Amino acid sequence: MTSATSRGAVLVLGGARSGKSRYAENLVIATGLDRHYLATGRAWDEEMRARIDKHREDRGPLWNTIEEPLDIVPTLEVIDQLDNVVLVDCLTLWVTNLMMEEGRDLRAEFARLAAHAARARARLVFVSNEVGLGIVPENKMAREFRDHAGRLHQMIAEVASEVYFVAAGLPLKMKG
Amino acid sequence: MTSATSRGAVLVLGGARSGKSRYAENLVIATGLDRHYLATGRAWDEEMRARIDKHREDRGPLWNTIEEPLDIVPTLEVIDQLDNVVLVDCLTLWVTNLMMEEGRDLRAEFARLAAHAARARARLVFVSNEVGLGIVPENKMAREFRDHAGRLHQMIAEVASEVYFVAAGLPLKMKG
Amino acid sequence: MTSATSRGAVLVLGGARSGKSRYAENLVIATGLDRHYLATGRAWDEEMRARIDKHREDRGPLWNTIEEPLDIVPTLEVIDQLDNVVLVDCLTLWVTNLMMEEGRDLRAEFARLAAHAARARARLVFVSNEVGLGIVPENKMAREFRDHAGRLHQMIAEVASEVYFVAAGLPLKMKG
Repeated sequence: MTSATSRGAVLVLGGARSGKSRYAENLVIATGLDRHYLATGRAWDEEMRARIDKHREDRGPLWNTIEEPLDIVPTLEVIDQLDNVVLVDCLTLWVTNLMMEEGRDLRAEFARLAAHAARARARLVFVSNEVGLGIVPENKMAREFRDHAGRLHQMIAEVASEVYFVAAGLPLKMKG
Repeated sequence: MTSATSRGAVLVLGGARSGKSRYAENLVIATGLDRHYLATGRAWDEEMRARIDKHREDRGPLWNTIEEPLDIVPTLEVIDQLDNVVLVDCLTLWVTNLMMEEGRDLRAEFARLAAHAARARARLVFVSNEVGLGIVPENKMAREFRDHAGRLHQMIAEVASEVYFVAAGLPLKMKG
Repeated sequence: MTSATSRGAVLVLGGARSGKSRYAENLVIATGLDRHYLATGRAWDEEMRARIDKHREDRGPLWNTIEEPLDIVPTLEVIDQLDNVVLVDCLTLWVTNLMMEEGRDLRAEFARLAAHAARARARLVFVSNEVGLGIVPENKMAREFRDHAGRLHQMIAEVASEVYFVAAGLPLKMKG
């Protein structure tokens, strides 16, 4: 599914506190390319703002951090160069943000992202939470979120060259 | 555990929207055998009825669809022939249906299904939701459901010749 | 990470009713060492008391059972001998017990356990519930529990020589 010039995207799935982000960061560093961090989380309040700033500081000056909760495809297009690697952290927060906006067509957004991932010149590493392995949530919005996240994971996995499932900090290779 | 004449059953586990049913359908198609689809879901209302009919239409005329929410072993016995392959979709809905009936002995039902799976002449492919990997549910019935599903998965996995765990549309082979 | 004299600990992760404890018990038995069972669960009431006693009876007289809900490192130190194997069942109950106590520093407790596991002379087999793969819980304490459990799993996995993920009674080797 990836074009001849595409480096192929990487998808890193895992649960809460599974070590998936750290694993993805190490994948990014190992490429030796120019590092970009696309943070999809929103700074709702001072505490969240402080946490995002702390993470940015922890990553150090070798990372260019971009905050974009919604329009991640246009953002990825701007930095789509062969000498770039982009860590998108994380897809599930992006899904949450899209669901909270009025009038967004999530299927169309997912298709745009998958199409971009399939042909990107930059190396893309997506981090996402696997959320579908518990009991069916009683909350309707939580069920819809779970369905959206699962569909997006399938779409990105299909065009990805590598997919990992991380638990307890350890990766299981599912594709690649 | 499977008899000499048994083809061995297949168990496909996965989360919500993991692509497990599509993966199982492809396994069924690849056998080249006569396809049967045993749907355990109940058409509670018009919307569910429409959804079941839509799925049946999507599978196309090469599938014989049977709807049976409770007595799946007798149903499987009727079509237990060497030239048949049966997709049972899904075990967790069957567990739910059994729990909602008065006076059903779930352990006995599970044992009957595992015994049938171990000696079946038809190729059997079971799809089921892995639901035990989240926080302990506060709801008592949800906890019981989770326990029942986990026990059933262990029993079917023990007699199965192949077991897969599907995430993001990708299979991890756990047995076979 | 393990010292030259350490046998290396084993971590067995899995969901509810995944068969993880039975799998861990078989690992313990296969070592041929003197078996100890460190039960972290608390007997809150008569029913729980009866259940714990039933499990102890099922394991049989070849197991030395120790009940310790909180101070598991001092307990492990007492039986830290080369001819011993200890099944710690389970880490998530230990986390729960620590959270319910006033004034416990969970990060320090986890670090102590990981340090002990890295240098233990006895063979240690830890069982724990993977709880981070469902929807974010609405309950704040459940979210904190999930974060603690995930951090502890990463710390133990890092010093362990073998890590398994069990589903439907079947192990996936993640390390070792």
